Order: sequence, then structure tokens, then C-alpha cells
Amino acid sequence: MSTPPSGQFQPYDPSVANYPRNLWWVAARSGEVDGDTLLARRLLDTDIVLYRLRDGSVAAMDDRCMHRGLPLSMGWREGDEIVCRYHGFKYSPQGKIVQIPTQENCPKRAALRTYPVVEKAPFIWIWMGDPAQADPAKAPEYPWLNDPSWVWAGGYMHVKSNYMLLKENVLDLTHFPFTHKTTFGALDDYDEAAPNFVQENGTVSFVKEFNNQALSPIYDKDLNLGGKPVDRTDKGTSMSPAEHLFTASVYDRSPPPGERGEYTVHFQHLTTPETSTTHHYWWAMSRDYGVSDAAAAWMESVAKEAFAEDKVVLEAIQQRINDSPAPRELPEVSAVADRAGLLARRQLQAYLEREAAQEA
Amino acid sequence: MSTPPSGQFQPYDPSVANYPRNLWWVAARSGEVDGDTLLARRLLDTDIVLYRLRDGSVAAMDDRCMHRGLPLSMGWREGDEIVCRYHGFKYSPQGKIVQIPTQENCPKRAALRTYPVVEKAPFIWIWMGDPAQADPAKAPEYPWLNDPSWVWAGGYMHVKSNYMLLKENVLDLTHFPFTHKTTFGALDDYDEAAPNFVQENGTVSFVKEFNNQALSPIYDKDLNLGGKPVDRTDKGTSMSPAEHLFTASVYDRSPPPGERGEYTVHFQHLTTPETSTTHHYWWAMSRDYGVSDAAAAWMESVAKEAFAEDKVVLEAIQQRINDSPAPRELPEVSAVADRAGLLARRQLQAYLEREAAQEA
Amino acid sequence: MSTPPSGQFQPYDPSVANYPRNLWWVAARSGEVDGDTLLARRLLDTDIVLYRLRDGSVAAMDDRCMHRGLPLSMGWREGDEIVCRYHGFKYSPQGKIVQIPTQENCPKRAALRTYPVVEKAPFIWIWMGDPAQADPAKAPEYPWLNDPSWVWAGGYMHVKSNYMLLKENVLDLTHFPFTHKTTFGALDDYDEAAPNFVQENGTVSFVKEFNNQALSPIYDKDLNLGGKPVDRTDKGTSMSPAEHLFTASVYDRSPPPGERGEYTVHFQHLTTPETSTTHHYWWAMSRDYGVSDAAAAWMESVAKEAFAEDKVVLEAIQQRINDSPAPRELPEVSAVADRAGLLARRQLQAYLEREAAQEA
Repeated sequence: MSTPPSGQFQPYDPSVANYPRNLWWVAARSGEVDGDTLLARRLLDTDIVLYRLRDGSVAAMDDRCMHRGLPLSMGWREGDEIVCRYHGFKYSPQGKIVQIPTQENCPKRAALRTYPVVEKAPFIWIWMGDPAQADPAKAPEYPWLNDPSWVWAGGYMHVKSNYMLLKENVLDLTHFPFTHKTTFGALDDYDEAAPNFVQENGTVSFVKEFNNQALSPIYDKDLNLGGKPVDRTDKGTSMSPAEHLFTASVYDRSPPPGERGEYTVHFQHLTTPETSTTHHYWWAMSRDYGVSDAAAAWMESVAKEAFAEDKVVLEAIQQRINDSPAPRELPEVSAVADRAGLLARRQLQAYLEREAAQEA
Repeated sequence: MSTPPSGQFQPYDPSVANYPRNLWWVAARSGEVDGDTLLARRLLDTDIVLYRLRDGSVAAMDDRCMHRGLPLSMGWREGDEIVCRYHGFKYSPQGKIVQIPTQENCPKRAALRTYPVVEKAPFIWIWMGDPAQADPAKAPEYPWLNDPSWVWAGGYMHVKSNYMLLKENVLDLTHFPFTHKTTFGALDDYDEAAPNFVQENGTVSFVKEFNNQALSPIYDKDLNLGGKPVDRTDKGTSMSPAEHLFTASVYDRSPPPGERGEYTVHFQHLTTPETSTTHHYWWAMSRDYGVSDAAAAWMESVAKEAFAEDKVVLEAIQQRINDSPAPRELPEVSAVADRAGLLARRQLQAYLEREAAQEA
Repeated sequence: MSTPPSGQFQPYDPSVANYPRNLWWVAARSGEVDGDTLLARRLLDTDIVLYRLRDGSVAAMDDRCMHRGLPLSMGWREGDEIVCRYHGFKYSPQGKIVQIPTQENCPKRAALRTYPVVEKAPFIWIWMGDPAQADPAKAPEYPWLNDPSWVWAGGYMHVKSNYMLLKENVLDLTHFPFTHKTTFGALDDYDEAAPNFVQENGTVSFVKEFNNQALSPIYDKDLNLGGKPVDRTDKGTSMSPAEHLFTASVYDRSPPPGERGEYTVHFQHLTTPETSTTHHYWWAMSRDYGVSDAAAAWMESVAKEAFAEDKVVLEAIQQRINDSPAPRELPEVSAVADRAGLLARRQLQAYLEREAAQEA
């Protein structure tokens, strides 16, 4: 527990871009990029237009016509091409100008920057760094969100805070009894710091075991164990600066006849910087039991209510940072429970240093 | 067609004032400065108060009391003088303090800056540079707007873009089929770049001829030629950074008996910078045929709808410029159709260089 | 009367903090800090949380949790302690962290900055400078506001101007006939500059005598002298940059039998900077005659209406300052009636110089 020494990595200075570019980030939910939609979204301080091609893939390019600078997302599609609303310059999905209505020739060399995109439903991932390093196989995939034996709910929030504030939020669940006093705080019991922290393969996790005790209401919902003692392991992992996965694994050691006795709940917390003081946040909650529409609706309602409470907190913290003439000098006292969050700062720092070294 | 070479004149950097001061700019419509009105308006980054004197002329001065800085436009008139709402300092139309209610004497030398103004109805023009160079004869006059054998409509829009974006807009009408797909784009046929560009006497024009073809609906309105082939010449001219005139001249070479066979339509596009990222825009549309109140109402409705479409486009372009950390480095690819617009940048540059040379 | 020479103290540059810290400033009205309230207020560019302890005293500390920066005012009280809404860090009124819910120990040395506070009802005063210099005895006290033989009304306004603009406003009442033409201007007669200015003990006053004349309506209200000639002395004093007192003393030299013939009206104008371009303004109007609820209601209505007129003026002046690229170079012509206001600038300058010398 200490005030960070001067010079320590401080990820919240609004004047600094604290995100790696060589990484798959969520750009959109699959359903947002559909039909004739030209989706305009600011990602990593860059204005992007996303749209779906006729072969079902998704194209992404800079959202600014090279001619006179109108956002292309204000234009319209013609087949796989985009027409600018100002003078009708037409762009291919490769960012090339393929038609200028008032003349025969088009510039051969000029092209908008395009971005590798890979869709692993329900998410569309974008690579905003060096395209040569973009390996679609490394974009995260969540097969359980497409598995009918699971039930899930998901949502989106625009949050006026740096994305790392949310990363640290989900790495320390001891805020439940305070921020979520009547929501998650009433549904689960996080009154102690997670005792175990794991760093492996570039990821950062906290692990917490609950042994032989009644299951929290949020997990018992539709299991209805009625206070029967069970075991549970929670593991929350910052897979990368873009991706956080939480898994609660429940073990009923003496299940009723015909019941498997093992149950899983996942949360995804997927954050993409919009600017250094705002971010996009996509979340999903899913589980492999009690599958029903009513369960999905309940999940959505519980999570939305709780995450709205986080949003208020994160935005108030960011506002104090924005109002400060010297954000790097704001005092900060860390607790034992911050261990995972502090390791995630190092995780981020490693990404940034790796990129800086590549560019040098 | 090319990306502008580094060092080329780039008129859209919000940190630079890209307007000449030694030029007549529109300050207001005549009807705005009337009765007891003290009209507050920001022009060329300067707050001005305008009001009409008893002799019918218009006075303009800095809109800030020299005493404690209240805008004089918040005060009231007493005859030809303005009384400040704070402590009652009274100013003459020459900007002199002529009364301080609490004392005998007034400062003799202190005076607000006043500005030469000339009214050529329906517009009031202001000169914000060196008063010695202000020649009222050079303020533009549009006699047809006061000629009962003409019909006209006019309007005002506040546009959140640099004024040069509108200048370039009206110098390249090939945006009609895209920006105005269902308005002007449906009423006139501008699917080709203007073939001729003229530079003369410091002005920049495009010229386009339509020979022996049916008249576009916007010009045929109330002429009702019924598809009869006629000739038409369009000429759009940037007279100065402050003034753009467009004229369509229609020639029916075999008019019906008693018809003159020649018809004229004018558009004025008068732009005055408010700041480097916003401007005032006054427009007028007029013609010398089909004079009626209904025609004026139709003109107003058509032009307002189309110009609102331009406003959306120009403001979106400006927003991208405002959001850019390096506006001068934004890519720009020009087309053949941009020739007049690019010449207008040189026209502006010549004004600015002339002023800089005078001041040196 | 002159334009201030270059280099003269100019108190309105928004980039400069023009307030002394070693001074008692009003932080709140007594009634605002009550029950479970955690009052968040920005004072002197610092975010403060104020709350009332069980012994009735008021605590004030920085409104930002040392852990992860959430405003403490978003949390809640437990007895005399504040619990942070994020992770439940608990603070004592001395700013110490007394509980971290997830661990045994708390940091011993880390503490939020706290501020000396003294309540002299109806106002709570705060000392934001060197605590060693804070002498509660020197915080202003207004016994007549707690005296049942007086009647008073008070209010609060948030004003988007530097606080010194209001200070100068109340030091020169010749704005009454202009800013308050139909309110105070109709109720009192301030058409001349105050003839006398007094500097004593670090205060600045104007003094104006009205001899043997009918009492102004604002003072005659509920006295009903019916035009009888009386004497009156007005004295307005900038006690410090934080405090302005105005007193009108009325002397009826031949009072009716049983009447004392001496009457007093006070105004307090208490200003506290929020930022360099905004301030908090608390006012009170009181008198020792005509005590009734109706009188209090009338006072409140008259003062609110007039002070709203001042607010419009001060905010317009500040806006011009904010819009100026060089506020220090804005012209300023002073009049005889500005003498008290100019002396108040020197009063402020002396405070600032004294503090700078102490810190050197």
C-alpha cells in the first residue's frame, strides 16, 4: 500500500493515448453493421466507417472523403461501394477511389486507410495497428454465445472515462457492497479481496474460492439450491487491454440424481477507447443452466442496473481527472485488493513498450 | 488532380484568421437594423453593435463599453446615442464618450473603434480594415433586388464552418446530384464539371453552356416552355472573398410573339466570417420573369431546403477539421471540377498577401 | 480618469487565480450543511466536501478519495465518518483513512487535506490557506441576523463572473439608475458618485450623506415617514476580498413621541471564488424596524429581482473577457465614481502580495 512513486506508469493522463494499436478491439456488435448501414464510430481517436459487404464480411476504413473531407458515413452504399454525399466520389472496400462522377480518371495511388476486421459473432473486431501483424485467429471468440444450451444477455454503454478505469473496476469486485449496495452487492458476497493473483501468458487474473457455502442469489437464480452448501471458483482475467473475462464455476459435490452438478457463468467486459477520456463498453452475461427467455431478460435487467452504477462512478472519477491541472500528480493510495488492477497497468505498459520498440 | 504539396496555401486551419479586413463584408440585412434595435453581431472575430441613426444611416462600433466592458448592445438608445446599461456612459455614433452621469467631464481622447458602413438595400456592408481605404462606391449593389419587375427571395443561415467552405461549395455545382439529390439535384442538371474557368479583374468564374436543350425545372418554373429546346449560360463568380454571384441566362431563340425570349436568374451567396470556424451566410435568389408573391414563396422554400442540406455537409466537414490535431495535414485530393474553388483560394491568398504587405 | 497604465494590477485575467487563501471565505449557509448531507462545493478552484458532525461542528476536506479518486460527496456518512461509494474506504473528519473494508491495516500517514471551518450562523466560513494562521475569532459575525428585533432576508446566486466584478459592483451604486432602472433604481436615488472614500484598517469604504430630505422608498417602507425630511448616511465597505458590508443609517431628528428616530439597514455581499471566472454570492438584507414576515418576504423579492439584473450584467462582462485573446489589454476607462472599486483592487493586491511574500 503506497502512493505511487514519481515516474511510475500512470495510465490516466488525458493528454496521452494509453492504448496499443496492435491488438484486436471490439468495433461493434454484429447486429449494428447490417443492411445499408454505414456505421460511424470513433475508435482509438480515429473516425471509422464500418459496413457489411455482400459476401457477409465487414469493411472498415477512415470515415473522411479524401476529396473535401465529408464523413463517408453520411453518404450511401451502392453495392459494396460507398458514395460520398458531397460530390459523389465512390470508394471501394479497399479504400480506393473508383469513380469521380465528373471525370474519366481516378487517382491511382490515393486511398483511404482501411483496417483489418474479423467477425466472431456477436462481435466485430478491428485491428488498428500494423496490418501485417493482424492474425484473425487471435481475435477472441466466445462459442458459448452461439450455443443454444446457454442463455445470455448483452449490452452496450458509452462511458465518459478512460477505458482503463473500467478495466480496473472489473478486476476488483470488492466495490460490490458499496457501488452496488442494492444490486450486485445484494446478490453476491465480495467483502474480501481476492486472495490469489495469477499472471500467465500475458494475462492477469484474480482467483477467489468459496468453499462449502450457500450459493449467492445471483448464481442460485434458476438453480434453486435452497441454501445447500456448494463450492465455487471465481476467476476474472484481463486477457488483454481490450478484453476481460470473468468465470464463476459452481460445483455441487452431491448433485441430485440426474443433475450434472457443475455450472458455469461467464461475463465479458469488452472495452474500446473512443478518446483518451471516453470509451465504448460491451458486456455480456451468460450461463449454461436455466435457459429461458425470462432468464435472459432477468440477466439484462440486473446487469444494466448495476453497470449504470459503475458508469456514474467512473465518469465522476474521470471528471476529477479532467478538471485537474496536473492529473499525474493526483494522490493515489492503493490497497491489497488493487493487486490485479495494478498488474493490468503493467500488462498495458508492456503492450505500449512493445509497440514503441517496434516503431523505433 | 493531386494531394496538395506541403506548403501550399491551406485556408482551413482554425488557428488562423483567413479573412482580409480591407474589404466590404455584409454586416446585416437592412431590416435587421431598425427602430430602437441595437444589433449585436460578431464579425471577423470582433463584437460589433449596429444601429440606425435618425438620418437613416447606420452606425457600427465595438460592442464593449470602455468603462467596465459591458456590451453596449445591452443598453439602449437616446436619439443617436447609446447608453450603457451598467453606469450610463453615453456614446456618440463616433464612439466618443459624451456623458458620464456622475461627473462633469468626459475623457476627450478615449473612443471606441467605429467602422465605415454603407447600406445598399437590402444589405448593410461594413469595412473592418483601414478606414482610409474604405470606398463606399466599391460596396456591392444589386439594383435588381429593388426593381419591381423582378421577384426575389432571400434568407440568412448561421453556419458552423469556415466561410471558405461555402465559397468552394457554390463554385462547384457538381454537388447538386449528391447533396441535393431530391431538391436542386432534381431541379437542375449538374452532372458534369463546368468546362470553362475565367479569371478577370481579381474575380474567379466558372462558365457552363447548355445548348438547344429543354430547360431545367428550376428555371422553367413559371416560364412553362414545355420542353422546348433553348440555350442557357451559367456563370458563377467569386467577386471577392465576401461575395459570390451566380447568373443563369436563358435564351429562347424563337420566342412566341410578344415574348422577349431572354430571361435572367441571379443568386447571391454573401458570406461573412464570424470566427474562423463559423460564418454568417446571406443568400438571395431573384429572376426577371413570373413575378408574383407565390413565386417568391416558392423560391424561398426551394432555396431554404437546399441550403439546409449544404449546411449539414459543411458543418460535418468543419467538425472533422476541428477534431483533427493537425488540420493542415489532412489529406485532400482535388478533381477537375475543383478548379474554380482552387482559384478562389488563390484569390483569397492574394488579398491576404496584399494586406500583409501593406502592414509590413 | 485614465486607461490603466501597462503593468497596473489587472484582476480579471482568467488565467490567473486572483484570490488570497489566508482569509475566511463563506463556504455555505448554515442550513445547507445538515442531517446526512455531504455538500460538494468548489471553492477557490478546489473541490471540497462539507458535513456536520454529531457535536454540531462542520468538517471540510478535499472531495476526492485518496484510493481511486471518487468524490467522497457521492458516498455516505456513518456517524462522523464518510464512506466512499466505490470501495468503501472510510475517512475520519481529520481526513485519515480509518477503514479499508478488505484489509486489516490502513495507511498511517496518508490523509486528505482538511480545512479549518467556523460557523457563525447563518454562515459557515472556511480557511483554505495556512491552517496555522486561521483565527476563528476573525471570521465575520453578524449578530443582528440572529436578533429577533431585526428582520432579514438572504439568498444565494451562482454568478459566472470573477468575484471581483461583483465587489466593484457593490462599491459603486451609481449603476442603480441604469442596471436597476425599475427596481433599486426606482427605490433609491444614486445619481451621484459617493463623495467620500475611506481607507482604514485594511478596509475600503465609500460614504454618502443625504441631509434633510425625504427618505427613499426602499428605506421608508414600513417606516412611513410620508416625505418628512430626515438625514441618512450610507457607508459601503469592502472589509476584505471576501466580505462587503453596506449600512444605511437613518436619523429622524424630530421623531414622534415614543419613537427612537434612528434606524439601520444592512446589506451583506459575501463572495467566494469558485473558479477564476465564476463565483458564489451570498447576500443578506436586514433592518431594525418594521419586523414582520411580510417585510422579510418583501425584502427577498426586491433584492432577488435587482441582483438578478446585476448577474446578467456581470456575466456579460465576463463573457467578453473570456472571449478575448488578451484580457489584460482590454481598454478600461475609469470614472470618479470608480474610486472605491479601484481601492478594492489595491486591497486585493495587498493580500496577494502579503501571501506571495510569506511563501517566498
